[in-house]
This record gives sequence, C-alpha cells and structure tokens, in this order.
Amino acid sequence: LSPAAKDVESQLTDAAKGDRVALARLLSTVERGGEAARALAALAYREPPPYSIGITGAPGAGKSTLTDRLITTVRAGWPAEGEGDVEPVHQVAVLAVDPSSPFSGGAILGDRVRMQDHATDPSVFIRSMATRGHLGGLALAVPDAVRVLGAVGVPLAIVETVGVGQMEVEVASATDTTVVVVTPGWGDSMQANKAGLLEVADIFVINKADRPGAREARRDLEQMLDLSSVSSLPRDGWRPPVVETVASDGAGVDRLWVEIARHRGHLVAGGVLERARAGRLEQELRRVLVARLLHRVEEIGAGDDYREALQAVVEGRLDPYGASERLLAPVLPPAPPPGGRAGGS
Amino acid sequence: LSPAAKDVESQLTDAAKGDRVALARLLSTVERGGEAARALAALAYREPPPYSIGITGAPGAGKSTLTDRLITTVRAGWPAEGEGDVEPVHQVAVLAVDPSSPFSGGAILGDRVRMQDHATDPSVFIRSMATRGHLGGLALAVPDAVRVLGAVGVPLAIVETVGVGQMEVEVASATDTTVVVVTPGWGDSMQANKAGLLEVADIFVINKADRPGAREARRDLEQMLDLSSVSSLPRDGWRPPVVETVASDGAGVDRLWVEIARHRGHLVAGGVLERARAGRLEQELRRVLVARLLHRVEEIGAGDDYREALQAVVEGRLDPYGASERLLAPVLPPAPPPGGRAGGS
Repeated sequence: LSPAAKDVESQLTDAAKGDRVALARLLSTVERGGEAARALAALAYREPPPYSIGITGAPGAGKSTLTDRLITTVRAGWPAEGEGDVEPVHQVAVLAVDPSSPFSGGAILGDRVRMQDHATDPSVFIRSMATRGHLGGLALAVPDAVRVLGAVGVPLAIVETVGVGQMEVEVASATDTTVVVVTPGWGDSMQANKAGLLEVADIFVINKADRPGAREARRDLEQMLDLSSVSSLPRDGWRPPVVETVASDGAGVDRLWVEIARHRGHLVAGGVLERARAGRLEQELRRVLVARLLHRVEEIGAGDDYREALQAVVEGRLDPYGASERLLAPVLPPAPPPGGRAGGS
Repeated sequence: LSPAAKDVESQLTDAAKGDRVALARLLSTVERGGEAARALAALAYREPPPYSIGITGAPGAGKSTLTDRLITTVRAGWPAEGEGDVEPVHQVAVLAVDPSSPFSGGAILGDRVRMQDHATDPSVFIRSMATRGHLGGLALAVPDAVRVLGAVGVPLAIVETVGVGQMEVEVASATDTTVVVVTPGWGDSMQANKAGLLEVADIFVINKADRPGAREARRDLEQMLDLSSVSSLPRDGWRPPVVETVASDGAGVDRLWVEIARHRGHLVAGGVLERARAGRLEQELRRVLVARLLHRVEEIGAGDDYREALQAVVEGRLDPYGASERLLAPVLPPAPPPGGRAGGS
C-alpha cells in the first residue's frame, strides 16, 4: 500500500467509528483529487452506497430550510405508512454543493448557518462542497463523496445544490430520489429549465405553498406530468407526486418524507434501484474516461511537440488532422485502413 | 498515394479549372469524413484560405435574402472607398449551414430557392451543408470546406447559418469577418444570446430597418458596444459598426460590403488577420484532438473489456477510476507517481 492509501484507510476506519474530523478529511481528499482520492475511491466503491436524496431548485426556493427540516424528520426513521414500523436512520449527511463557490469544508455558506441547529447532533454531518482539483469536477467528486459516506456507514445522504444550472441539476439527479423544489410563480422564472427539471424529478415540492399562486403552480406541474406520461418518459411506472410545503414552519415536510420513502419502496420493489445505480455507475465510468482523455489533450497542448505541430499547421506544411495524428501517435493506434469511417477526418 | 488521395487530387485540379461538379463532390467528401476527407484536408490546408465572411442571426432575420443581395454586390469587387480602385471578386461561394438538417448538397432549403437567381452565374457557387459522418461535426467540417474552397482558388467564401444556436454561432464566427444580423425588436427574442453574439460580432446588421423599432435596436446595440469597450473585449481596436439594411429591396447592402472591406483592411493592416487565423487553426487542432479521443471512448465503450470492467464496478469489485485505468492502459501512460495532481481521480 502507498502512504496515501494507508492514510485514507486509517481515516476510513476512524470515520466509521464516528470520528467526524476524519470524515471531513476524507471529503477534502475527494475534492482535491489526485493519488489519495484515487486510493480512497478504490476502497469506497467496494462498500454499498447510502440511500441518496438530491434536492435542487432555483435559488431562493427555500431548499436549505427544507433540508434543515427534513433532517429533523428523517432522524425519526423511515416512515412505514399504516404499519407503524419505524427503523431509525442513525446518521444523515448533507452535502451542500455550490459549483460557483471556491469555498468548501468549513466555509459558512449564507443560510448554511441555519443548519448549525444540527451542529451539536453527532448523528448529523453537514458539509459544503465546491470545485477543487478533482478531475472531472463536481459531477464526479459528488458521487465519490456519497460513496465515501456509504463506506463509513452513513445510511442516508442528502445532496443539495444551490441552483438549477446544468451542472447542479446533473449533480442533484445523480441520486436515488431527486426532489425538485419550486415556489408559487416558478413557471415564469424557470421557463427554460422546465423540461430538464421534469426529466429528473422523482418528487416535486411546491415550497412556500402558503403564498398566492400555489394552486396554479400545482396545476401547472400536474399538466406537465400529464403530458410527459403521454410521451412516456422512462419512469418505470412512477408518477412524480407534487408535495406542498411551508419549510419555514415545517408544514408538509412529513408528507415529503413519506413520498421519499414511497419512492424508495417503488425502486426497491421493482429492482429499479439496482438498475438505476448500475446506469449511474456507467455514466460515471464514461465521465472518468472522457475526463482522463481530455486531460491528456491538455497535457499534449502544453508540450513542445504541440507547439511545433501547430506552427507547421499555421505555415501550411501540415493540416490539423495530420498534426493530431502525429501528436496522438504515442497514445492512439494509427488511423484505420482506407475506407474506414472512423478515420482521421 | 492511396486511391482516395488520387481521386481528391484530380477533383481538386478539375474544380480549380471551374468544374462545379468536381467542387460539389469535394464538399460531399468533406461532409462524409473518413479517409478521403483526410487526404483532401492534407492537400487543402497547404493552400491559402479564401477571405471568409460568417453570417449568423435568429431565424427570420432575413439572412438568406441579405446573403443573396450581398452576392450581387460582392461580384462588383472589393470597394476602395474614395479611391475608385475596384478589384473584381471573380468567384464567390456560399456555404449555407443547418446543423439540424440531415439534408445537404442538392437539397432545397426553404428560401435557399431565392438564391437560384444566381444558379446560372458560373462565378457563384451555393451549397448547403449539414452534419454527416465528419468526426467533430460541423465545427470541423465547415472550416475544412472553406479551406477546400481556397484550395480550388475561390477568393471569397460566405458561411451562413440558419440560427443562433451555440454550434451555429461557433461555425459562423470561425471566419475572418463575422456579421450578426438582428431585426427591430430583436432584444426580446435573443436576450439569452446577447452576450455571446456581442463577443463574436465584427459587424452588426439591423435588417428590416424600415420597420418600427430600428432606432431602439441601434441604441440598444450601441449601448452594449459602449459597455463592452469599457470591459475591453479583445477586439484589437475594432469597434463593430452597426449597419441598417432592408435586404428585400437591397437598401444598405452596399454599406455592409464597405464595412466588411473596412474590417478586412483593419485585419490586414495590423497583422491581426494572420494572428486570428493562427488562433483559429489552434482551435481546430484542439477540436480534432478532442474529437479523436472522444471517438476512442466510444470505441472503448463498445468493447467486451468495457462490459467486463463495468460489471466489476457494478458488483463493487472495482471503482470507476480503476476501471478507467484498466481500459485506457493500452492507450495512455500509467497514472503519475503518488502526490501528482494529474492523477487518476
């Protein structure tokens, strides 16, 4: 074992015993990328993942407050509607993801302060994540972090993003249950993203449902869902429910938790959970492949051979395809025989 | 020389003598990609490029009509304002690019019909281009096609795109002079793209300037340009002029041609043209590198090794980084030593 691998192995052992500092270090290692993160991933992906919930929605929709309330609700355990069988969730971890922020770890992110309510609860772990050195960025770092949480025995992970940018929706939807939070009047502000959000949502929340326009927002969502079920999105028979909440006073949050549990039951019962997780792992693998190859292009672009080849192209002695072949010769097999479509052009 | 290379070489000779069928075949070769396109690029990039003009703008802005009028104006030669020195443009080629269309070549694209006015003029060559098999898509196929035009002696190429999608703006802006066409009232419809268009425009045209709102459109554009000169876009001292046209009756098109000539003079005088072309060639080279490596990921993803590695990841025997390393081992050097940031994570 390399020194880096030994370090992460002992940190994993400590974190599994409840050492929060060790867990925080592990997540910093994920963010930083590099050899230690590589060693950590090799260990973390051997263990089963936690159940993961993604929460996304426009800034100001009240996601943090909702997450805050949800933590309290979640701690009472998975609801078993009508059966009274409550299995406690002994730990919950929240990853608050902000692609635009250079801060992470100990940084206090605006209304993250609110979550400090849970700061003294040893069963709640809250952590913000931002882009650092991880190859492939947050789209790979966050799934890795979720696997680390699983590897240290955390049974439930909530991934919350600050907004609905492409990266944020991607990150939040790479979870078992994706919750999209809207507010009354959301239609106007998120017009452009509607289709994308519809595609990823397993559950819709209309937060601030005590404000005017909640009824219209629900009608709007239900109509969208009617249309999408006609066009048969690959939903495995699940129609995303619409839950109304007022996160500021906690109204509706129990209902949200029940719907999350219902969605989990749906996934587990039909074998959908396994298939969906396998599909996400394939996406991750492809992302890693692309990231490593793009990284290689960057390395190539920084070399002397590249400068020379580019100069030859600029001077008309070589075309870009010939230059590419020359530069990639050490790392890619030669161009296919004449007639092949996979060729250099 | 391979048979494919011999074919394209003789077609280049024929096209240079004015054989339009040979030229059409060469452009089809570019679109198709593969070995013949590769051989063609190797020859075409040896010759100097034509002067290229990109025309982009929202659908319905009147780009085709404008291009149609511009062809007539251009045929009178480059304007030499105040000097009366007119050098004829003996040939002009138009590439009408539609990323969403599967049609190309002989296909009649809506108002392309109008351009049939020039169909009998041997000095005008009009051709639509769409995505086919070219690795890297239109972003590489169009620059290749422009170089082919240069290689057969066409001195002026106009690249017109149907809309202002990301790919279309990219394609139209990979030219010496980029013309962005707007209409009165454009601000509302293109809000999201304004910044991107401002960045690429060398000349703004307000077409349909006889309609209400032309003055507001100009004020809007000039304000944007004022702001951008404060933020000092890398414009080499060029402030994009705003030209008003009514393409349907030809008003203002002479002025547009004068501004294109003025921009060309600016580029040539300061050595900017050479630098800009070198920069575009570097972009092309990077695109080719990325396209070839992504193509490699696709090939990998279609293989048995990939299926096996993915299965190992799904079963928790391997992590995505380990799987990636295994799959890339034949084509990429092993991971850097411990501590390196460029590592596998």
